Amino acid sequence: MSRLEIIGVEGIDEARRGDSIGALIAEACARQNVALARGDVFVVAHKIVSKAEGRIVRLADVEASPRAVELGRELGKDARLVEIILRESRRVVRTGGNALIVETHHGFVCANAGVDLSNVGLEQAALLPRDPDASAREIRAEIERRTGITPGVIISDSFGRAWRLGTVDIAVGVAGLAPIKDERGTSDSYGYELRAAVCAVADELAAAAELAMGKKDRIPVVLIKGYEGKGEDGSAKELLRPEAEDLFR
Amino acid sequence: MSRLEIIGVEGIDEARRGDSIGALIAEACARQNVALARGDVFVVAHKIVSKAEGRIVRLADVEASPRAVELGRELGKDARLVEIILRESRRVVRTGGNALIVETHHGFVCANAGVDLSNVGLEQAALLPRDPDASAREIRAEIERRTGITPGVIISDSFGRAWRLGTVDIAVGVAGLAPIKDERGTSDSYGYELRAAVCAVADELAAAAELAMGKKDRIPVVLIKGYEGKGEDGSAKELLRPEAEDLFR
Repeated sequence: MSRLEIIGVEGIDEARRGDSIGALIAEACARQNVALARGDVFVVAHKIVSKAEGRIVRLADVEASPRAVELGRELGKDARLVEIILRESRRVVRTGGNALIVETHHGFVCANAGVDLSNVGLEQAALLPRDPDASAREIRAEIERRTGITPGVIISDSFGRAWRLGTVDIAVGVAGLAPIKDERGTSDSYGYELRAAVCAVADELAAAAELAMGKKDRIPVVLIKGYEGKGEDGSAKELLRPEAEDLFR
Repeated sequence: MSRLEIIGVEGIDEARRGDSIGALIAEACARQNVALARGDVFVVAHKIVSKAEGRIVRLADVEASPRAVELGRELGKDARLVEIILRESRRVVRTGGNALIVETHHGFVCANAGVDLSNVGLEQAALLPRDPDASAREIRAEIERRTGITPGVIISDSFGRAWRLGTVDIAVGVAGLAPIKDERGTSDSYGYELRAAVCAVADELAAAAELAMGKKDRIPVVLIKGYEGKGEDGSAKELLRPEAEDLFR
């Protein structure tokens, strides 16, 4: 039977610079009496990873460039925040209203380069991890060291969408699982060859995990059991649409 | 503790015109010994709803307009399929490669107006339900009649995204739950007022459910237990970004 469990991992409400997120997760699961098993996937909100990796910037330490000052005025945003966003970006994709949509150095197209002022402390901003796949691999390795189980790990963030309101969580970093499930070339039971059957399972796992997180609940780590994914390796970069195939960049 | 269960409902691999999907679901849950409870959410892949509602078109019955013939040639698509897509659309948003991105009469911006050739039988196409919110309400009412429990119901479809590869399932119809969780105006534990905390929970529930569906597994109905959503009513239209606020239309 097809059954998954989405379990909020308790007791990791904060992380400090230098913390091992993998160690925090292994300890929290032990406290919560959650037994790990082959095939388990952890989804980790990027913010505690960013905190552990020291990817926190104090607005007071930032000097806004003239471009950031101008964009900040246009969009009604703090110029120092705009400066941080521009530093995290390859380029600005679109501006309008008070939205600043950019392409990050990782290649993510999103609002504000994922730079976030919530749940980091007043006048501070959390950046995305520099290499979220590497962060995921490190967490995975540490959990394996401590538990003997090698889980899949996803680093997640809340992204807005073109055309639809509200954010959904998506995968910005992946380790130990294939982020895409590709059924192209197989046939349905009528004999029709599936041509469009490419599913972003890592994004769906991240979205599922968000349901057990909640912004104010502050459960930044969620364990997913029962996901029968294939693949032992993968990168969140596989989820990026190449610019040449992109109609909206 | 924050814990959700995602349960594939078995034995509903097909639906025929005139079937009551709500009745099929109630019967399948009884066979599977799944007890329903307050707060349960069913996610139903739109295709069985479309089949039950007779929203299936045979390509042989469609005459392509000159515009459909031209677009079909440009995009490498069957002109009759393009004709069906155009009839389901308010307008074409973007074309390129072999992609045809439209805005449907419901207001969804998506590829091919959600018209789908897979798992419907050769040379046939499934359209989206005409009013997916109404379909969801009907399913909800029938499950209530048969079980005494009034679940939330989401009708889902697999949509592609700008900028990211692969589809994720999203909500095209909603009944009995608030599709958006809005935490704006509340503060985080540092006292920072959350300004961007609007989460498309119905889309996340749909994405979570897809993990237990699978194209070839053909489990078109998934039960989600443990989701502690608020709101007794809602519409998938709440998830549509108004055009005036949309930077990519």
